[in-house]
Amino acid sequence: MSSLDASSLVINKTTTPKAKLPNDQLVFGKTFTDHILEIEWTAENGWATPTINPYHKLELDPSAVVFHYAFELFEGLKAYKDASGNSRLFRVNKNMKRMNASAERIDLPAFDEAELSKLIAKFVEVEQDFIPEGHGYSLYLRPTMIGTTASLGVNTPDKALIFVIASPVGPYYKTGFKPVSLEATENAVRAWPGGSGNSKLGANYAPCIKPQREAATRGHQQNLWLFGEEGFVTEVGTMNAFFVFETEDGKKEIATAPLDGTILEGVTRDSILDLCREKLDPNEWIVSERKFTIHEVKEASAKGKLIEAFGAGTAAIVSPIKNITFRGEDINVPVALGSSGELTKQLLDWIEQIQYGEAEYKNWSTPTKDY
Amino acid sequence: MSSLDASSLVINKTTTPKAKLPNDQLVFGKTFTDHILEIEWTAENGWATPTINPYHKLELDPSAVVFHYAFELFEGLKAYKDASGNSRLFRVNKNMKRMNASAERIDLPAFDEAELSKLIAKFVEVEQDFIPEGHGYSLYLRPTMIGTTASLGVNTPDKALIFVIASPVGPYYKTGFKPVSLEATENAVRAWPGGSGNSKLGANYAPCIKPQREAATRGHQQNLWLFGEEGFVTEVGTMNAFFVFETEDGKKEIATAPLDGTILEGVTRDSILDLCREKLDPNEWIVSERKFTIHEVKEASAKGKLIEAFGAGTAAIVSPIKNITFRGEDINVPVALGSSGELTKQLLDWIEQIQYGEAEYKNWSTPTKDY
Repeated sequence: MSSLDASSLVINKTTTPKAKLPNDQLVFGKTFTDHILEIEWTAENGWATPTINPYHKLELDPSAVVFHYAFELFEGLKAYKDASGNSRLFRVNKNMKRMNASAERIDLPAFDEAELSKLIAKFVEVEQDFIPEGHGYSLYLRPTMIGTTASLGVNTPDKALIFVIASPVGPYYKTGFKPVSLEATENAVRAWPGGSGNSKLGANYAPCIKPQREAATRGHQQNLWLFGEEGFVTEVGTMNAFFVFETEDGKKEIATAPLDGTILEGVTRDSILDLCREKLDPNEWIVSERKFTIHEVKEASAKGKLIEAFGAGTAAIVSPIKNITFRGEDINVPVALGSSGELTKQLLDWIEQIQYGEAEYKNWSTPTKDY
Repeated sequence: MSSLDASSLVINKTTTPKAKLPNDQLVFGKTFTDHILEIEWTAENGWATPTINPYHKLELDPSAVVFHYAFELFEGLKAYKDASGNSRLFRVNKNMKRMNASAERIDLPAFDEAELSKLIAKFVEVEQDFIPEGHGYSLYLRPTMIGTTASLGVNTPDKALIFVIASPVGPYYKTGFKPVSLEATENAVRAWPGGSGNSKLGANYAPCIKPQREAATRGHQQNLWLFGEEGFVTEVGTMNAFFVFETEDGKKEIATAPLDGTILEGVTRDSILDLCREKLDPNEWIVSERKFTIHEVKEASAKGKLIEAFGAGTAAIVSPIKNITFRGEDINVPVALGSSGELTKQLLDWIEQIQYGEAEYKNWSTPTKDY
């Protein structure tokens, strides 16, 4: 049984490199770099030699379990180019830990997190000319694990594949922030206790698409996923949700749903909570992981006690919210700076400064050459 | 926009036919026939020309949405060889209807159900030499639909593929019935109101594998999926669950969970309810689609009022239950005939007689040449 070994990496470079797109033509997840990182696993032999190959289609038997039983999970993270020309990764260890947790949830194999981090760093170095430069630009990385056993039996897969592909991306909001309108969704439920909503499984995504499209037909960019008769606020679209309230004693509270098993353990979520606890004045601010309901949000808005709100995730970092439609009524969400609240913008700046190596913070951003 | 058109079918036959396995070597879903039926769809052009090609691997871009967001759904049905040598399909219209409902749930495209039925019948005719003969033997068919858009955006796919593969299978229980032991599962939850448990999506399967494997380590073949604090009985493994109780006025009641959105709308489930309503004496029997709890099952067993229980699905038709372990205690389930209850065996016989064309019933079984 071989364990995952980054030192055995084999690199087969392409002989037909792609042209790099200009920054203004980058679309999230549409174009990819020249190569793919691949590592096969079998129950018999463990993890095979990692290889970086020219980007190519995957060839799988039509009975492969990934097509039938959703044996699939993924991660999303980014590589950044700093002012010195170094490529950098942001908190990749958090993604690797979550990826292993996702694999465990659906009986796919565990792997050595430090070794996959090293392989991803090496992959980024191979593709470094694809990392677009400038704030907001990055190379989006998509580590993926799929079950590849060619059998229709509903069992633990005995074959799997990790692959990593990379897509050069521009700022989520090309012309600065664009605050979004949400539809509070009650008829569809994203996750539940005893389910898999805290893991980054493919299974959590497809069932949320129809509600998203339907909300779009009514003019909303995303769903605000509620849970239970109480109407607990859980997530927004594919992001964690943050709300800022004014408390009764005149403080400000930033609140997000707690990790109760139904909430994705977002790396951006964790980063925001950490930064708020470290950098905001505790005499003025309360940082809360707690349950709160859409009714509390509605009441706070009506009383002028809702300060701002945003989604948080790797793609946009923060995504300001301007409106929530709940049971046909609009809940107004203030955007003090015109297109976002003050804390929303502050958090974007703090996180981007760390990601691009302009501010050192707890070793969250590491040049790929140091892996 | 082309709609699905069976009359345009193109057949490319293999030049290297496989050897047929002897009946005693057939394993469910492990070996496949010589061909695959494929129909591509694009939002722009609709359904392309259906083709039957030599069985081959699928080639897909690693960014295809089926690998990341579980845009996948499937059906399971069987083709049977009758005593006159005709190949037959059982209630394929029910599978086609459910397949369209599954597609709708995850924003994959709709198709003409009668046309796909015809194509499946033609596919079975091409593969008819692979249909093993005899009661319990059949050709398992796996219609599948996947989203194939090559983009990481979380959106409605604009490309999809229907494919159908076929695996010759033998009786689920090679040496007659083998009643199973279940573990009543409380820590993991299969489905939730507002979720997708009533659709045949890949997303419903992978998250149930770890609880299944864990139950197996404790000696149980399947999970009995419970729901809610009340402990409602929902499904058993990947089958619908039926329990037979003696009522207070001395009648017998066959009960299964109602279609409340969390229960798969099983074709075998529907067939059993229909047959029980038509064939059982209403002075003796009550046929119920109603909620009941594990506590009710436990109490009935303790009082000698639990008559029998079984799972119901396409693979096994009926799967008798002999024991349920709930919170460490065993609930004994009678098997009056030694390895199953009387009704369980009766239902197997009724359904097999229809499937193999020995008994005509409501046009449930139709020779493929008549499509």
